Amino acid sequence: MSTWEIFVTEFLGTMMLLLLGGGVVANAILPRNKGFDGGWLMINFGWGLAVFAGVFVAFKTGAHINPAVTFGIWASGAEEFAPGIPVTAANGFIYVTAQMAGAAIGALLVFLAYKKHFDEEAPAATKLGVFSTGPELRSYGWNFVTEVIATFVLVFVVLSFGNWPGDMGPLAVALLVVGIGASLGGPTGYAINPARDLGPRIAHALLPIRGKGSSDWSYAWVPVLGPIVGGVIAGLLAPLVAFG
Amino acid sequence: MSTWEIFVTEFLGTMMLLLLGGGVVANAILPRNKGFDGGWLMINFGWGLAVFAGVFVAFKTGAHINPAVTFGIWASGAEEFAPGIPVTAANGFIYVTAQMAGAAIGALLVFLAYKKHFDEEAPAATKLGVFSTGPELRSYGWNFVTEVIATFVLVFVVLSFGNWPGDMGPLAVALLVVGIGASLGGPTGYAINPARDLGPRIAHALLPIRGKGSSDWSYAWVPVLGPIVGGVIAGLLAPLVAFG
Amino acid sequence: MSTWEIFVTEFLGTMMLLLLGGGVVANAILPRNKGFDGGWLMINFGWGLAVFAGVFVAFKTGAHINPAVTFGIWASGAEEFAPGIPVTAANGFIYVTAQMAGAAIGALLVFLAYKKHFDEEAPAATKLGVFSTGPELRSYGWNFVTEVIATFVLVFVVLSFGNWPGDMGPLAVALLVVGIGASLGGPTGYAINPARDLGPRIAHALLPIRGKGSSDWSYAWVPVLGPIVGGVIAGLLAPLVAFG
Amino acid sequence: MSTWEIFVTEFLGTMMLLLLGGGVVANAILPRNKGFDGGWLMINFGWGLAVFAGVFVAFKTGAHINPAVTFGIWASGAEEFAPGIPVTAANGFIYVTAQMAGAAIGALLVFLAYKKHFDEEAPAATKLGVFSTGPELRSYGWNFVTEVIATFVLVFVVLSFGNWPGDMGPLAVALLVVGIGASLGGPTGYAINPARDLGPRIAHALLPIRGKGSSDWSYAWVPVLGPIVGGVIAGLLAPLVAFG
Repeated sequence: MSTWEIFVTEFLGTMMLLLLGGGVVANAILPRNKGFDGGWLMINFGWGLAVFAGVFVAFKTGAHINPAVTFGIWASGAEEFAPGIPVTAANGFIYVTAQMAGAAIGALLVFLAYKKHFDEEAPAATKLGVFSTGPELRSYGWNFVTEVIATFVLVFVVLSFGNWPGDMGPLAVALLVVGIGASLGGPTGYAINPARDLGPRIAHALLPIRGKGSSDWSYAWVPVLGPIVGGVIAGLLAPLVAFG
Repeated sequence: MSTWEIFVTEFLGTMMLLLLGGGVVANAILPRNKGFDGGWLMINFGWGLAVFAGVFVAFKTGAHINPAVTFGIWASGAEEFAPGIPVTAANGFIYVTAQMAGAAIGALLVFLAYKKHFDEEAPAATKLGVFSTGPELRSYGWNFVTEVIATFVLVFVVLSFGNWPGDMGPLAVALLVVGIGASLGGPTGYAINPARDLGPRIAHALLPIRGKGSSDWSYAWVPVLGPIVGGVIAGLLAPLVAFG
Repeated sequence: MSTWEIFVTEFLGTMMLLLLGGGVVANAILPRNKGFDGGWLMINFGWGLAVFAGVFVAFKTGAHINPAVTFGIWASGAEEFAPGIPVTAANGFIYVTAQMAGAAIGALLVFLAYKKHFDEEAPAATKLGVFSTGPELRSYGWNFVTEVIATFVLVFVVLSFGNWPGDMGPLAVALLVVGIGASLGGPTGYAINPARDLGPRIAHALLPIRGKGSSDWSYAWVPVLGPIVGGVIAGLLAPLVAFG
Repeated sequence: MSTWEIFVTEFLGTMMLLLLGGGVVANAILPRNKGFDGGWLMINFGWGLAVFAGVFVAFKTGAHINPAVTFGIWASGAEEFAPGIPVTAANGFIYVTAQMAGAAIGALLVFLAYKKHFDEEAPAATKLGVFSTGPELRSYGWNFVTEVIATFVLVFVVLSFGNWPGDMGPLAVALLVVGIGASLGGPTGYAINPARDLGPRIAHALLPIRGKGSSDWSYAWVPVLGPIVGGVIAGLLAPLVAFG
């Protein structure tokens, strides 16, 4: 698979992830939407099905669409990111770059789909919330712990899918993300994916959003480093328990 | 497959789509229903499972049950609408006509199933809302953009299902529609299907509904043209990324 | 398969259906439950997953667990109720009797599981609602129409499952029932199954429930005849559209 | 499979079960969470998907992750707990010990993920509720009956999965647990698993939780004995109806 194909595939998959994932947040929190105040479970299903769509689109590159998965696979000692794509620093760089770019463009599409609702009055923090995550109780240390644990679950369970001889493909990871959101998303909003948070935060900083406030850069490292650490721990533990 | 069989199959599939899809809206917004005010996620599941039922019923014609899918397949350069049904203008016409007629009759069945609730007092816009979509913030341009983006997601991801060697069949598209509704349905109510909107709007214009108001024809072009444009864009892009 | 095996299998499957289906209603409407006021979608999922469990348990008899399905298969002109079980009046009688008995015993188990909550103060109609269905707007004619349409959808789509070469087994019918509940359950509470309604109504009449009121026998024919008519119409139409 | 492998596998699976299962309760009931007051259906999905994750992780040992399943298999007269693992007292002891330890550690991880929210003011009973179950209407006898019935459903339906020639694997049991929670969780909060309740109760007794109250040991026997009795009844009945 060519570098260009890897880039386009991960770009489109992550774009789709953010378009549907950011979209459900916009629907739930921006004023005058049909899904306004639709509840946390609606947000969980929205993100889970965003993963579902993204995995179909990016299936040919193994559908990482998340640097924590790319790092986790690297840490597990696997030889390939996906069939035919060797684990190399160059390939890893392509994956992560495509994910970041796709996430930013996905967030831009959310902005366009919800343009009239972004034009309405709403707190600046609400508008930022459509793009990137923020904690309910700010505590960089404990927020980091939450992101590490939640991403550990994501990557560890994904790596355990090989235990089962069957194959549910994209549905399995979609449901897993619904569950992680319901169960571990309470404190920080479950970034569990550096691209999902950083790409849209960059988009937020650049876009001409009415009543836009800070992009909250002081928190931005938590949903980047936390997921990477969680993914690496999962990758390191996976061989010990002999999955696959 | 004969023209008559194509017609009946797409007719019944789209009738089932509207019967369950219009039904969940009736349940959620018409007064004195058991599911009154049941929330946006209930509406999303109702429509997703309406697609589920419609796809089983219309499986033999590829279960388009949506002109945007028919146009998208045409735009992708495919040679068949479904196995054994060549892409021709005549066949496309049969598909779309059957979809429109089935959608109108599905809406009629919703009217019958909820007859006593239509007889209750409710705003005219609420009663229209059981039949066809309307925007929360009226802006033909931006409403059009929203429908284009949402339908692009529908058709592009459906075309990407071939990436995965497995087959979830009707469940995959059902879940995708749940996700699109949760994520991109906020501004316009996600027609994402010209037949889903226009067929029932015609039924609304014709039926003797108590306290019926306008059928809002000035908006009617948005959920027809937007989905067609979104479907065509998806069809045109699909070959570029070599799905299948 | 012996008569006794058919009886036990359909009995246990329908018992499981009512235990979980009646249970979710009890949880949602009886006072001081953890799921009190849990919403219509919770009830829809509860009933859908009740079907899911019942279908696994009664798989060997084709898992009718519903006289409307038994009548619908008879009307479709099929030769077997399930592999190895010929369509005869005697077998049909065993199916329906087992379904009625299983439904009544399932309702009894709900009564035991929720005993302390039945002992609390609540309107008599609420307590009856755990057992059998009742309309929001009483109109025997229109209530009948609603039950006919909803059961037609159930049986017609179940018979169309054969269109798809894949097999989702119990999940397909479970999701279909979630959808029918969300979409067509608003006016009458979707009996769509004579045994589901009549068996528990008999149990209600017999059990020593605190503050028990009428078993509402004047309505009892609607959720029996409506589903049978709907199932028969679906069975008659199915061959016309050449499912399978 | 070595004793150590059995231990680690059941430990990790049950840890994952409690991490996601306890997590969704924390999210729904501890103050200032994004999923606060997210509803009973969210809790049902959280626990169902916790089982989903746990089953993938512990697939190699048959994914009991619940002593009621281990006891039920023993009662059914089966010869193996899982392929290659004979039913012996020693193996049963390893299973149950690993489940208890894994559940306690899973609860500890929930405590860490939600540390800042445990530091907030909340009733002691709410904080205990994240760890172990408690009845809405305390009545040891009837609470016991509820746990027996609910666990009977769990184990009986799991044993009936073999009736269907297909295989939905982890998804089937996940959905079953969603259904049991929605339908039978109202009175006691559906422990249906001695390890799920006792392991975290021990963790609660040991952890330095702000504003911690009683661990409610007087109730602790109900969610241990009830599920074991329910599982054994299911195991004893299963051969009578010739599942598999």
